Parts: sequence; structure tokens; C-alpha cells
Amino acid sequence: HRVTDAPLSSVAPCFVVMKFDQEGKVTSFEKKKTELCQELNLQARDLRFQHSTSLTARNNCIIIRMEPLKAIVTPDSLLVLDFRGLELDRWLILELAPQLTSQTYSLPFEFRALEAILQHKVNTLQTRLNEVKPAILDTLESLVDPKILSADRSKLHILLQNSKSLSELETDIKVYKESLLKILDEDEIIEELCLTKWREPGDFEETTLCIDHAEEMELLLENYYMQAEELGNKAGELKRLIDDSESIIFINLDSHRNVMMRLNLQLTMGSFSLSLFGLIGVAFGMNLTSCFEEDPRVFWLVTGFMFLGSGLIWRRLLSFLGRHLEPAAPPPIPPIWKRNLKA
Amino acid sequence: HRVTDAPLSSVAPCFVVMKFDQEGKVTSFEKKKTELCQELNLQARDLRFQHSTSLTARNNCIIIRMEPLKAIVTPDSLLVLDFRGLELDRWLILELAPQLTSQTYSLPFEFRALEAILQHKVNTLQTRLNEVKPAILDTLESLVDPKILSADRSKLHILLQNSKSLSELETDIKVYKESLLKILDEDEIIEELCLTKWREPGDFEETTLCIDHAEEMELLLENYYMQAEELGNKAGELKRLIDDSESIIFINLDSHRNVMMRLNLQLTMGSFSLSLFGLIGVAFGMNLTSCFEEDPRVFWLVTGFMFLGSGLIWRRLLSFLGRHLEPAAPPPIPPIWKRNLKA
Amino acid sequence: HRVTDAPLSSVAPCFVVMKFDQEGKVTSFEKKKTELCQELNLQARDLRFQHSTSLTARNNCIIIRMEPLKAIVTPDSLLVLDFRGLELDRWLILELAPQLTSQTYSLPFEFRALEAILQHKVNTLQTRLNEVKPAILDTLESLVDPKILSADRSKLHILLQNSKSLSELETDIKVYKESLLKILDEDEIIEELCLTKWREPGDFEETTLCIDHAEEMELLLENYYMQAEELGNKAGELKRLIDDSESIIFINLDSHRNVMMRLNLQLTMGSFSLSLFGLIGVAFGMNLTSCFEEDPRVFWLVTGFMFLGSGLIWRRLLSFLGRHLEPAAPPPIPPIWKRNLKA
Amino acid sequence: HRVTDAPLSSVAPCFVVMKFDQEGKVTSFEKKKTELCQELNLQARDLRFQHSTSLTARNNCIIIRMEPLKAIVTPDSLLVLDFRGLELDRWLILELAPQLTSQTYSLPFEFRALEAILQHKVNTLQTRLNEVKPAILDTLESLVDPKILSADRSKLHILLQNSKSLSELETDIKVYKESLLKILDEDEIIEELCLTKWREPGDFEETTLCIDHAEEMELLLENYYMQAEELGNKAGELKRLIDDSESIIFINLDSHRNVMMRLNLQLTMGSFSLSLFGLIGVAFGMNLTSCFEEDPRVFWLVTGFMFLGSGLIWRRLLSFLGRHLEPAAPPPIPPIWKRNLKA
Amino acid sequence: HRVTDAPLSSVAPCFVVMKFDQEGKVTSFEKKKTELCQELNLQARDLRFQHSTSLTARNNCIIIRMEPLKAIVTPDSLLVLDFRGLELDRWLILELAPQLTSQTYSLPFEFRALEAILQHKVNTLQTRLNEVKPAILDTLESLVDPKILSADRSKLHILLQNSKSLSELETDIKVYKESLLKILDEDEIIEELCLTKWREPGDFEETTLCIDHAEEMELLLENYYMQAEELGNKAGELKRLIDDSESIIFINLDSHRNVMMRLNLQLTMGSFSLSLFGLIGVAFGMNLTSCFEEDPRVFWLVTGFMFLGSGLIWRRLLSFLGRHLEPAAPPPIPPIWKRNLKA
Repeated sequence: HRVTDAPLSSVAPCFVVMKFDQEGKVTSFEKKKTELCQELNLQARDLRFQHSTSLTARNNCIIIRMEPLKAIVTPDSLLVLDFRGLELDRWLILELAPQLTSQTYSLPFEFRALEAILQHKVNTLQTRLNEVKPAILDTLESLVDPKILSADRSKLHILLQNSKSLSELETDIKVYKESLLKILDEDEIIEELCLTKWREPGDFEETTLCIDHAEEMELLLENYYMQAEELGNKAGELKRLIDDSESIIFINLDSHRNVMMRLNLQLTMGSFSLSLFGLIGVAFGMNLTSCFEEDPRVFWLVTGFMFLGSGLIWRRLLSFLGRHLEPAAPPPIPPIWKRNLKA
Repeated sequence: HRVTDAPLSSVAPCFVVMKFDQEGKVTSFEKKKTELCQELNLQARDLRFQHSTSLTARNNCIIIRMEPLKAIVTPDSLLVLDFRGLELDRWLILELAPQLTSQTYSLPFEFRALEAILQHKVNTLQTRLNEVKPAILDTLESLVDPKILSADRSKLHILLQNSKSLSELETDIKVYKESLLKILDEDEIIEELCLTKWREPGDFEETTLCIDHAEEMELLLENYYMQAEELGNKAGELKRLIDDSESIIFINLDSHRNVMMRLNLQLTMGSFSLSLFGLIGVAFGMNLTSCFEEDPRVFWLVTGFMFLGSGLIWRRLLSFLGRHLEPAAPPPIPPIWKRNLKA
Repeated sequence: HRVTDAPLSSVAPCFVVMKFDQEGKVTSFEKKKTELCQELNLQARDLRFQHSTSLTARNNCIIIRMEPLKAIVTPDSLLVLDFRGLELDRWLILELAPQLTSQTYSLPFEFRALEAILQHKVNTLQTRLNEVKPAILDTLESLVDPKILSADRSKLHILLQNSKSLSELETDIKVYKESLLKILDEDEIIEELCLTKWREPGDFEETTLCIDHAEEMELLLENYYMQAEELGNKAGELKRLIDDSESIIFINLDSHRNVMMRLNLQLTMGSFSLSLFGLIGVAFGMNLTSCFEEDPRVFWLVTGFMFLGSGLIWRRLLSFLGRHLEPAAPPPIPPIWKRNLKA
Repeated sequence: HRVTDAPLSSVAPCFVVMKFDQEGKVTSFEKKKTELCQELNLQARDLRFQHSTSLTARNNCIIIRMEPLKAIVTPDSLLVLDFRGLELDRWLILELAPQLTSQTYSLPFEFRALEAILQHKVNTLQTRLNEVKPAILDTLESLVDPKILSADRSKLHILLQNSKSLSELETDIKVYKESLLKILDEDEIIEELCLTKWREPGDFEETTLCIDHAEEMELLLENYYMQAEELGNKAGELKRLIDDSESIIFINLDSHRNVMMRLNLQLTMGSFSLSLFGLIGVAFGMNLTSCFEEDPRVFWLVTGFMFLGSGLIWRRLLSFLGRHLEPAAPPPIPPIWKRNLKA
Repeated sequence: HRVTDAPLSSVAPCFVVMKFDQEGKVTSFEKKKTELCQELNLQARDLRFQHSTSLTARNNCIIIRMEPLKAIVTPDSLLVLDFRGLELDRWLILELAPQLTSQTYSLPFEFRALEAILQHKVNTLQTRLNEVKPAILDTLESLVDPKILSADRSKLHILLQNSKSLSELETDIKVYKESLLKILDEDEIIEELCLTKWREPGDFEETTLCIDHAEEMELLLENYYMQAEELGNKAGELKRLIDDSESIIFINLDSHRNVMMRLNLQLTMGSFSLSLFGLIGVAFGMNLTSCFEEDPRVFWLVTGFMFLGSGLIWRRLLSFLGRHLEPAAPPPIPPIWKRNLKA
């Protein structure tokens, strides 16, 4: 009955499920969405997985979506839905199964399941940061190299791609942190996440242990929140490093340009001097009578004048340039400024 | 009696209304504002629709404005006001009507109506993002192309328009999120939105079900809040991509300029060398007696000297340039920096 | 007794007051500050109007300052203080008076007075935005025009002035919003603002109606809060548009520069080629014996060689430039990037 | 016993105190830190003044540090500690003393003392803003002057110093606001600040008056909070003005550069044309037989061709440049953009 | 049973412990993690030290990690774990031991231990700021020097490294502040940190003193929070100074470039004039009959015309440039702007 659901619900009303139970048995089967709902006493709506990252407790189940991974935790089993084609197979078989059956852990099954999934998500984020970080550092290192006159443009492309990945990673970390924070802010939801407590109220003294469970759950969630926070801090630092490096690259390029421009200007000055005194030579080259034609000394005189003159004019222009680029009076400023800064 | 209302209330005191009732009947009629108020037991002030996005419960009605769409939800009908000329006709007839009569949905009518309207708003925002995103990506892709020497200025225009649309979209998403958040923050308002509960208090056990309704309403609103949040995240990422790309474009343009400037400088060096040694030729071209006129070897000597001399000087200048653009001593720095960065 | 008050209190201890009462009578008179305080049972300190924007309830009066406008609302009259020279006269006579006597409005007098003043403030802010917005849009439009080689500097001045006005406007909107929010956050203050309730507690059933008044007051304040929020959103969008446009202007100017620099480089290449081959002509122009003087074919040969040679060298240099500005190998990158971006 | 305290406590265990009592008597003396503590019933730790800005109530004393000023307020006296060398003497003698004895003020002594100190701090901040603001405005005004081709570098230095002072001022305002806000957020601390209430509980009806005192204290603190907020707003606006002006300066410098570059390009075009056609002259200047030597018309023909030819080529190049700098097709864009912008 | 723990727990299940007891005795020994847990009644999980900065109370112990330092505070001893190789030895022996045995301090042992560790962390942060600050100021000072034409690129490298260190420092300060703030926000945790209270409830009147302890603990934590806040403010100011300086550097480089470009343009104008009039000389240099060959005055006439002509044209071009770079009409703007700014 919802527009966006229409195609989905009519085409794929059944899930491929991999089930991990408390004893470490792993089974894999297909099941219709409606059957699954009935079995777990959930409503169809609860299994829509509309948001890319969500973690909710519903009728003694924890329903989790972490980007590609969709899972349902019940008090004694973990169901992973639609796991095919997500490159999760290795993790499911080699890591998830052993973790769930680990005996060191005294807390109920849902803790193990939840921890495995949250840990997997944090690991995924960490992996993405680990991939993007050295790429960015290498690219930046070669871009800020002061010997380089112009930025290598294929490296710029790589940098752009990596900043893009980095800001996507930052968004994902933020979304993950927010989904955990929403739970941490409401004690009721934390208690709902402790599934075992709700089922066997008669087995132990309810009041003491149930609070304990909630506290353990809070610690567990807080732990992953802080891990995500640390990742977020690292990503933020990397982002700032990119920004700082870009400023440095700009200053570098501008400096190179100024240096070349000064050289260019100095040569232009030389050419100008040569043109100016060359004009004398051109004048004497005219087929016009200058009355000096016969005197052999005049040739050397004029030639010498031309070369010496352009040399002298050039020197004057260069020293004029030197003075021109220095500002007039502010030598008293820098020390004052320094004192202010250090104060 | 309010200044800003004066023209509105005197010119258009009547609404064009399209009414959808619970059975799927759709009627369309004109009604005076005052009559409508009396009928729904509302005050004139409640139907002013002053804010571009608002969602309020008033006297067992939900009054909604979502930019162009003005609607009133009562427990058994949905009134859409002033719907003409808003390009909403297709949606009203083809999508809204079927959604409202859908039988799969066990919750009261106002839930269906509210969901349809919120979903419509989110879809509108999503559509706007979908329009602006590929346009921006295409423009950026062609602008950051490293082969391009100068940015295509008509593309810059398109980029500017699209960033403008994007920041308007961001504002609208923010306003939509805030209007939902304001309700989610106050449990009272959520309960007021559950219209049915208030009308038929005798039909069922009030305490249990009414809480349930409020919880369903909270889930519904939270769902759309999170969808808007995801849209906002995507828009924010796009904004950052534009910023990152602009930095890259600047570095690109600067790099091109530096490359051209070096080429220019190298040619200026060549021209300078030619001018310098050409001056010898000019000197010998003067109509002055140099005493070498008769010796045929001198011609080849001087000509050779001119060409060889300029060639040699040019080479020296080029190698000077090469050394000049390299900084003096910092080869030990890069590796240290790298170690620091990777640590 | 306060330092900052000393001059004020000794020079101007009397107010020029314009009084609007419930029946629409408007009187204007001068009154000493101390007399006014006694009359209204306020303390001298309450009428200091130290902050540019404030709204407080004190001893059954509402004391308001909105930048230039100072007003006191009592349950049956509105006093506007020191109204001269503020260009408020038109508003006071033509708009405020009719609004206060309007009969459509069933709520007590203080609601009408408060609404009139808050509306006036919002209108002032809106007017300022309306003044600054088209000026900014026009200036930006002419500055981002891609045909323009250099930014018109008088337009830059106008833009700077308008951004300054815009950020002042943003501050004022923020201050206005905060002064309303401070009240909306504390229910007690809202109740204090409902003056009528406090005076005639015996006239009606206290509990029900007084809550109602407070709710009406909250709606009224919230309404103006949201209007200010919308203004703030618009101002923020305008600010972002200026930032985006400035980036575009920079890219535009840089692009123009690159285009000119390439043209310049191409011409420098041409000049270099001409100088190089012109040197041959200069060589043959020397008054030295080259043994070719008598052969008429040599003239055409050398001349042709000079022109053809410079043409060929120029062409080679141009094609070298064309290759040089293209990067080496990254054609495989763009499509990958695109896929990434669109994913 | 704390590392950081060690030197301090061993070298300077005694304060130079200036005491202002309720009757206006001012005495100045030296006192050991330990004696002072015993007298006021405080612990040594309370008089460490570790933070640059703090305001705490301890055992019926208010201990204040506002950057250089350290003070203790007791119910009937104000002690200013270590006041020498802080350039506070004028303020202490000429302003503080009269304020403390002012009789207009009906509230207890600690209110007068606290108000005097908070007012002094706000005045100091205001003075710093007043010093830095005109300096920044003057510098910016001369820097954004569109006639200026290159920024005056000594003015840039002044601007940098002033932005530094401005951001230090912003930090100080923030710290001051936070230290007041911390108190305003906790009603208990406000009550502790009302010293008189605690001492003479029997003198008046405790419940009514003591609440009144707390309310007066809250108003007093809020007043200074808002004054600091206004200062902060002004400083923030100034900061944004600097940012906006810097953008304008960059656009200005870039524009100048583009204008000069176009002129340069136009002249390069001219030089190129002259070189091209000058080559003809050089060719005819060669000592080679061209067979035209005797015909006097050829001289004028070739000369004319040279001048006309370079003129024509230059004109073509200039018009080519004009067309080249205009983009191809986007004249339809600007009006659309305008419509969009104004919508 | 956790993936990330696997290697750690199998390789290093034992700690090197340095124990400081209340009497000042320092012992150092190795202990298995499991034994330590049993002894202190902790769970293995509590000693994982997963986060770089944490401070938690667990079963009457305070477990602290401050980057490299791992410590456990019990009511009568402080255990520092894995202290080798962290360059902490000097601090442990010379500073920590004396502080812990100091007798001036009347509060329980855990206060002394906690204070010593928090103080150590703040000192570390302060040291890092003290290292980075003068390096940054020196680099900036030499980079903003207006005499410098191009930024020294090895200094840019140093600046980049230091900004990187600075943003890492900012992150660490933020993390430290947040870990303290998390405790300050929850009174329960503060009470748990007062270990002594829990052990000897019979020794003194519980209710009064225990509250006192919690208050002392809050003061202690708040003190270090504020010290970290001050450090954060200083780091933030330094960051802003870097940003401001970079803007100034850019304006500086741009200004230099404009000045050089104008000089270059003026020389290009000169060269153009010389080329233009030199063409006359080239024309007369051609081996063609101009009929003026015999007249000696023509030589001087033409030569003079060439020099004077180029001089005049150059002057006209220069004055054209002067006018061209000045904008047309906006002299009335600056004063208006000033008035606005100062208003």
C-alpha cells in the first residue's frame, strides 16, 4: 500500500535466510516474508529495512540493518537475511559463527550476536579508512613536494576521488554514531534490547540482574560508540590535513609563479635595453649618409656604446626592480608583531 | 485585522476543496473559508497557512501545509485546498486516492492520509535531489577534466544554478526535518495527531490502544524524519563534492598556468639570447667601416658566433632556470614528514 | 549610580510618550521617567532599555524594545516612548492605531498590542531583506556573466556593502529569534505575558481560560518565531549564493587568464621563430663579404628560407604546446570516476 | 603540594589587598595568604585563581577573577588582590569607590560590588572592540579601494595584527559569557551568590525576600550576559566583514591582472605583427641582389606594405582576441538564471 | 572471543606493574592479567583499555587510560601498568611519587592519584602546545614578511607539519574534555569515583561527608576541564591565526605579481614603441633606392624621429595604462561606505 514498497513487495516477498543458533549450528534456507513475520510474531512493516542504518527492538527481536547486512536477533538465534552477493560470505562462515559459539562470554546470546554485528560494522568502517588514508597521504605528499612546479593532474584526480570517499565515510560514521546515540539516550530502548531478561523472568531475581543486563548493554553500545567516535576523529583530521595541504599547494604554485615572473621581468628588461640601443645600430644601418661612414673608429665606438649602454640600462632597471619590490617603511612592524604574538 | 492578511482575506475568502473520504469517494467543490471553519469547528486563524511548512493538530483536525500543498485531515476525510495550478492533479487522482482506500493498512484513516502527504513531500524532495545530482556530477566531471586548460564558462553557469538549487533543497529538507522534530519532541502533540482515539473512546480499552496509536504515530513520523535525514546527508555530501572539486579546478588551472609560464619563460630566454647576439649582426650591418668588410671568412665567423653564442647562452639560461626553481636544501624533510603522517 | 547610566539619567529623565488606549484614543504627552515608573508601579531600572532587543514582563506590564522602538504594554493601553525622529510616525498613525482597535479579534488588548509590535519588527526585517536581495542578485548576475574579463570594481564595492548589510540583518534576525525563544522556553514567562488573566481572576473560571490564554500567547510568539526563522533561512541562502558566486567568479577570471596566457604563449612562439630566422637576414645584412652577393637566386632562397623556416618552427612549437598541456596517461580515470560518483 | 603551585606558593604567599567597605572607606595593606584564608574561613585552594576568568561562591564569599583582576566579595566589603601594576589604579580610585557607596541602590552590598566588577569587565571588552574596530575598518577601506593595483603590504600587516586581536577578543568574550552562563544555568549557585540572605535570616520574612534576591541576581547576571552577547555579535560581524573584504580584494587583484594581461596580449600581438612584416625589411636589407635595387617605387611599396601589413594583421589579431574571449552560445542563460534567482 | 582482542590476549596476558601505596612505597613487578583481575575483583573486560582516553569507575577502582598511560587507582594504592618504553620513567619517579605522599592534602588517596594523573595529562597537552606554538609563530612571521616575493617552500613544509600537529592536539584536547564532561554530567559517576566513601561508611557521619567528597571530586574534575578548555581556546586561536596569515600571504603574493605585471607591461609598451619606430630604420636599411640616400640631414631626421617617436608613443601608452587601471566613476562610494561601516 505504499508507493515505494509496491515493486519490492510484489517482486521479492521472500528472504534467503542464514540462521545461526546458540549451539553453533548454521542453516541456510529460503522463507517467505509473511511466514517469517508470523514465526517471529512481527508485522510485515517491521521487516521493511527502509533506512540504511537502523537498530530497533520489536516484540522480543532486535532488527538490525547495517548498510548491506540485514539481520534479526532473537533470544536464541541470529538470522542473516539476503546475504548473497554482498561479499559477506567469508565473514559469515569464518568469523561470525565462531564468535557466536564462543564460551568465554557469560552474557546471553543476543549480546554476542549484537557485538559481532556492531564489531563487523566498525571493522568495515575502519577498513575503509585504512584504504583511503595511505592513498590520500601519498597523493598529498607528492603534491606538496616543493620541487614541483605544477600539480600532477592525474594525482589531483586521485585526490578528488579519495576526498569523496572520505566524506562518504564521514557521513556513514556519523549515521552509525547517531543510530547508537539514539539508543543510548533512552534507557527504555536499552532494556528492550536485553531480550533474555524478558523471557525468563522467573529464573533469577529479576530486579537486580535485569538492571545489570541493561548496564552491560549500555557499556557494549557505548564501547562501539566510542570506537566510531575515534574513527570519526581520525577522518576529521585527515579532512583538515587535505585542506591545509591544499592551501600549501596554492602558496607553492603562487610562489613558483612569482619566481618565474621575476625572471621573466628581468629578461624583458634585458630585451628592452637591447632593443633601445639596437635602435642606434638600426639607425646607422640605414642607407642614409651619416658622414661617419669612413671613420673606422666610429664603428667600434658605436658598437661599444650599444653593448655597454644596454648593459648599463639593464643593470639600472634590475636594481630599480629590486627596490620596487621592497615596501617602503615597515621595518619597525615585524618585531612589534612578534612581541604581540608571543605575549 | 492583520496588515498582511488584509488583501488575502478580502480577495479570496473561499477555497477550492477536493475531498477524499474513507470510502474512496472523491468530490471537488468551492467553499467559503468561514463556512469551512464553522463546519470543522476551527477558527479563521487556523486556516491562514502562514508558514511554508507546518503540521499542526487543532480541534481534532490535522492542518498541513507542505510548500504548495494545503490539506486538512479529519478523522474520516482528507480535504486538499486550493489544489489548482500546482501540478498536483496527477498525484491527487492517480496516487493519493488509491493510497487512501488501501485496505491492507489496519490503522485509522488519518494515518493513511498523513503518511500519503508526508511520503509525497519526501518524494518531491527526492525528485529534486535526483534532478540536481546528475546535472552537478556531469558538470563537475567535465570541469575537473585535467585536459581542460580553462573552465567552460557556460558550464560554470550551470554549476552555479545547480548549487543554488541544491542549497534551496538543503533548506527545504532542514525545514521539513525541523517541523517533524518539533512534533517528535513533544509527546502531547503526537497524541493529538491520533484523531480517532479522541472520538471513539468507548469502543475499546482506552489506555492500552491509545498508547499504541501514539507509538505508531511516532514510528510513522520518525520514519519520514529519517528519510529526510538521509536526503539531507546526500545533499550535504554533494555540497562537499562541489567544494572539493572547486579546489581541484583551481589547482588545475594554476598548474596549467605555471606550465605555460615556464614555457613562456624559456622562449623569452631564447628571444633574449637571439637579441643579444643579433646586436652583433646589427652592429656589422651599420654603414660604418669595420675594416673586416673584405675578408670573406669574417662573415662566416660572425654569423657562426651569433648563432652558436645565442644557443649557448640560451642553454645556460635554461639550466639556470632549472636550478632556480628547485629549492635549496629540504630533501631530508619529505621522508620525516611521511613518517609523521603515517604514524 | 551606574557609570554608563550617569549621563543618560541626568540629561533625559523624561520620555515623550504616545498612548494608545483600548478605545482607539491616541494621546501624546511628555512625562518624567520617575512619574511614569510610579504610575505603572515599575522600578526605574525596568525602563533602562539597555539591550537593543528585549521583551520582558514586569509587574503586569510588558516592556518591549525592538531596536528603535520602545514600548510598554499595560492591560488597557500601549505606550510608545521616545518615538520622535525614528521614522515611525507613519506606522504609528496609519497602521498601529487601526490594528489596536480592530474588533474582529476576541483576545485581550495586550495580544493585539504585542502582535502589532512583533509584526512591525518582522516587517522591518522583511523590508531590509527585500531591499538587499535584489541588489545582491543584480550585482552577482552581472559579476558572474561569463563574457566579462575583469570584475567591475564599482560593483564589487556594492556587493561588499550589501554583504555587510546582509550579515547585519542575519545578526538582527538571530537576536530577534533568540529573544522570542527565551520566552518560548519558559512557560512561566508566557503566563506572565498574559496580563489580563492576572487582573480579573474573578470574572471567569480561572483554570480553564487562563491556560487557554497562555496557549494563545505561545501560538502568537511561535508564529513570529517561525516567520523570523523563514527570513533567516532566506538570508542564509543568499549568503551561500554569494559564496558560490564568488567561487565561480574566481574560476571565470582564472579561465580567462589561462586563455589569454595561451594566446600570449602562441604569439611568443611566433615571435621567437621570427627572431631566430630573422637572425639569418641580419647576418646577411652585415657589411661583410658572404660571396653570395651577386647571385640573385640567393636573395629569394634566403628570404624564402627565413619565412618558411619561421613558419615551420612555429607550427612545431604550437603542436608541442598542444601535446605539453595534455597530461600523459589518465584517460582511463574519468569513466571510473563517473561510475563511482553515480553509484 | 601541586607541581604547578610549588613555585608560586613558596615565593609569594602574601597578597597586596585593597579593601573597600560598605561605608566607602578604602584601606590598602599586605596580608599573608594563610591569614586571609583564616579570616574569611576559606581554604588555601579557593584562592589559587587558576583560571583566567572565574566567578565562584565559597563559604559566603564570592571569589572573582577577571583576567588581571582578582577580587573577593564578602557581605560587607570588597577585597581587590594584587592590584599593583595592572593599570587598574585609576579605575579603583575614581570609579569603583564611588559606585560601591552609591546610595540610590537599595540592594545589598554584594550586588553593588559584583555589578561594578562585571561592568568593568564588559567595559574592558568594549574598549578593546572600540580600539580594534576603527583600525580594521580603516585598513579594509583602503585595501578594498578599487583604484589600488596591489595591496599595500604594511596595511596587510596591520590587518593581520588586528584580526589576531579580534579573535583573541572573541575568545575572551566567549569565556566571559560561558562563565556567566554556567551560573545562570544553576539556580543553586545564583542563590549562593546572594550573600546577605544567608547571614541575616531572622531579619525579614525569609521565603519571600530571599527568592526576590535570587531573581535580582539572575537579572543582574543576565544583563551582563546579554551585553557580552551583543559585543560578541559585533565582533562576529567584524570578522565576517574581514572575510568578505578579503574575497573582494582577491577579485579586485585578479581583475586588475586580467586587464593588464589583455593589454599585454594586445601589445604582444602588435609586436608580433611588426616582427612578421619587419622580416621583409630585414630580407631586403641583406647584402644580396634582389633585382629591385634600382627601382625607387619599390622602396615605398615595400615600406608601405610593411606598415600597412602589420597594421592589418594586428587588427585581425585584436578582433580575433575579442571574439575568443567571448563564450560561444550562452546568451539565453542569464535571463533564465535571473528569473530563477528572483523566484 | 573478540576478533580484535585475539592476538593481544594470547601474546601478552601479563602486565608490568609499578605500585605506589599510600605510604609512598614504590614497588615494581610483573603480574598476569587474570591474577590482577581476581585481586582487584575486576573482570578481564575491564582491563582491555580499548579507548585511547577513558576514565571509569568499576567495583571500587578507578581505571584510567590517558593515551600511553594505563593506571588503576584503588582506595590505597595506584597501579601504573605497562609503563616501560613510554618515556614516563622520569615523571613516575621524580614527580608522581612525591605528589602521592604529600601530606598537605587532607583528601583521600584517590584524589591525590587522580589529580596527579589528570595534571600529568594536561601538562603533556600544554607541552605539546608550547612546542608547536613558537614554531608556527616563527614560520608565519617569516612567511608574512611583506618583503618576500615568493614563499620559502621549506618553511611551508614546516608550517604544514605544525598545522598537522596542531589539529592532532586539538583532537586530543577535545577527547580529553569529552571524557571529563561525560563524568561531570552524571552525578552518579562522580560519587562512584569517591572510592573512600564506599569503604568506610561507619567511620564518620555518612550523609554529610560523602556529599562533600562528591563536591570536591566535581571541583577537581571541573578544574581540569577548564584547564583543557583554556588550552583548546589557545589552540583554536592559533589555528585561526594560521588561516588569517594564509589569506595575507595570498594577498601579498598576488600584490607582488600585480606590481611585476605592471612593470612588465610598461616595458612591453616600451619594446613595442621601439619596434614600431625601428621598422622605419629597417625600411631605410633595405637595399632599395629611397632617393634620400645622399642628403646627410635625412639621417639625423629619421634617427631623431625614430627615437623621439618611440619615446612619445611610449609615454602615451603609459598614461593610457594609468587611466585604464583606474575605474570610471565610483569616487562617491568610499565615503558612503565608510559612513555605513562606522555607523
